[in-house]
Amino acid sequence: MAKKPLILVTNDDGITAPGIRALISVMNTIGDVVVVAPDSPQSGMGHAITINDTLYCDPITIDPKGPQSEYRCSGTPADCVKLGTQQILDRKPDLCVSGINHGSNSSINVIYSGTMSAAVEAGVEGIPAIGFSLLDYSAAASFEHCKPFILSIVKQVLENGLSSGVVLNVNFPKASNEPLKGIKICRQANARWVEDFDKRTNPMGREYYWLSGTFVNLDSGLDTDEWALEHNYVSIVPVQYDLTAHQSIQELTKWKF
Amino acid sequence: MAKKPLILVTNDDGITAPGIRALISVMNTIGDVVVVAPDSPQSGMGHAITINDTLYCDPITIDPKGPQSEYRCSGTPADCVKLGTQQILDRKPDLCVSGINHGSNSSINVIYSGTMSAAVEAGVEGIPAIGFSLLDYSAAASFEHCKPFILSIVKQVLENGLSSGVVLNVNFPKASNEPLKGIKICRQANARWVEDFDKRTNPMGREYYWLSGTFVNLDSGLDTDEWALEHNYVSIVPVQYDLTAHQSIQELTKWKF
Repeated sequence: MAKKPLILVTNDDGITAPGIRALISVMNTIGDVVVVAPDSPQSGMGHAITINDTLYCDPITIDPKGPQSEYRCSGTPADCVKLGTQQILDRKPDLCVSGINHGSNSSINVIYSGTMSAAVEAGVEGIPAIGFSLLDYSAAASFEHCKPFILSIVKQVLENGLSSGVVLNVNFPKASNEPLKGIKICRQANARWVEDFDKRTNPMGREYYWLSGTFVNLDSGLDTDEWALEHNYVSIVPVQYDLTAHQSIQELTKWKF
Repeated sequence: MAKKPLILVTNDDGITAPGIRALISVMNTIGDVVVVAPDSPQSGMGHAITINDTLYCDPITIDPKGPQSEYRCSGTPADCVKLGTQQILDRKPDLCVSGINHGSNSSINVIYSGTMSAAVEAGVEGIPAIGFSLLDYSAAASFEHCKPFILSIVKQVLENGLSSGVVLNVNFPKASNEPLKGIKICRQANARWVEDFDKRTNPMGREYYWLSGTFVNLDSGLDTDEWALEHNYVSIVPVQYDLTAHQSIQELTKWKF
């Protein structure tokens, strides 16, 4: 029998979030699982890393019946992957999975996403990596409808590998009475947030703001993650961290500096 | 006479850092300058945004002789751009510049960079944007050799515009006795950090870590930002925030889920 794969699990909602507990339960059916995840919510952390502060990383038992090893880390999702691979694991994992995030990381959300930054960090280290997110911010969100798809996607990644420099961004529609229609391989939709700051005055009379906003999809393509999710498909976007806009190089070379 | 361009200036080293003061001085020769920058250093913040905490953004006078308006913000570089464009400025700026960062944002550093996240945030909002960084972490770093190149690059961007979805990542070699050789349009080098955590014990006996590491360039190409910088050229990488690995879509579509 082939050796079981070693799987590093992390997230950005914190180690006790229902989403990561659901992901751990699926990963336990596939491989040997080590969890290194933030000790507190880290949503919106993007690809932040902790360079001017100390990092703690301690063993913790959350699920006494689970076979997995778990560590809670004081840092960001990217820190968790760095600590996991360099300090906790004694060999390079065969896979890193991040999530299941409580909330969408489709389209432009990928650049703000702690969930995806963990997957990207693993990708940079040469580890096949997948971020999973659910379009439901509720703490009581159901993840059951995601599980068979996660199993299928992870098995394909373990079997086929991923191209160098590529990780997967997987998003699931919110659970409904309609079963999910299947999986679509997509491109990132062209979309943005239009900010709408909520300006308030604190008890000391000083003005402050809360960031809020409205998501605007500017993309009418049928091949985007937004289209797939709106039509009850699971979206998979292959994501790269070579950010070079190669198509612009020739144009810029003509500029007279 | 044409109207002077409105320029939003930000950074990630904080509003009093010498790098942003140098950038402001160049921008004052070109346009009307409004500075919205973090009130404290935000290095390594990636594309973090503040969604679970309050944001402060107050006027401040740092340079009484300067014509620019300045605001210090309690948030991240991306927050500064959002607040600047939505709350401080009364019209969309013609340009957003970020930096000059104390330290490199070439190659893989772009994904961890608060400097570049500010530029990307502006790009998402449809504002031509440039991040500037210097390969010198020192607080006493000299920025004088960067200034004529910044002027030239900004003028070209104001004249030609930038393609939709593209911002510029500009890095400068450290000042030396040799003058800079010129500007190279580059791709992002394939490089990574190999972590080397420094494990210590705190006075209460609890173990903690400091993140450190060694930069490893895995790319021998002559068209990369690392090559240009090593050879005393200014590097410009056009950066996109559509992270889709388009070349992988066809391959993934063949997978049997």
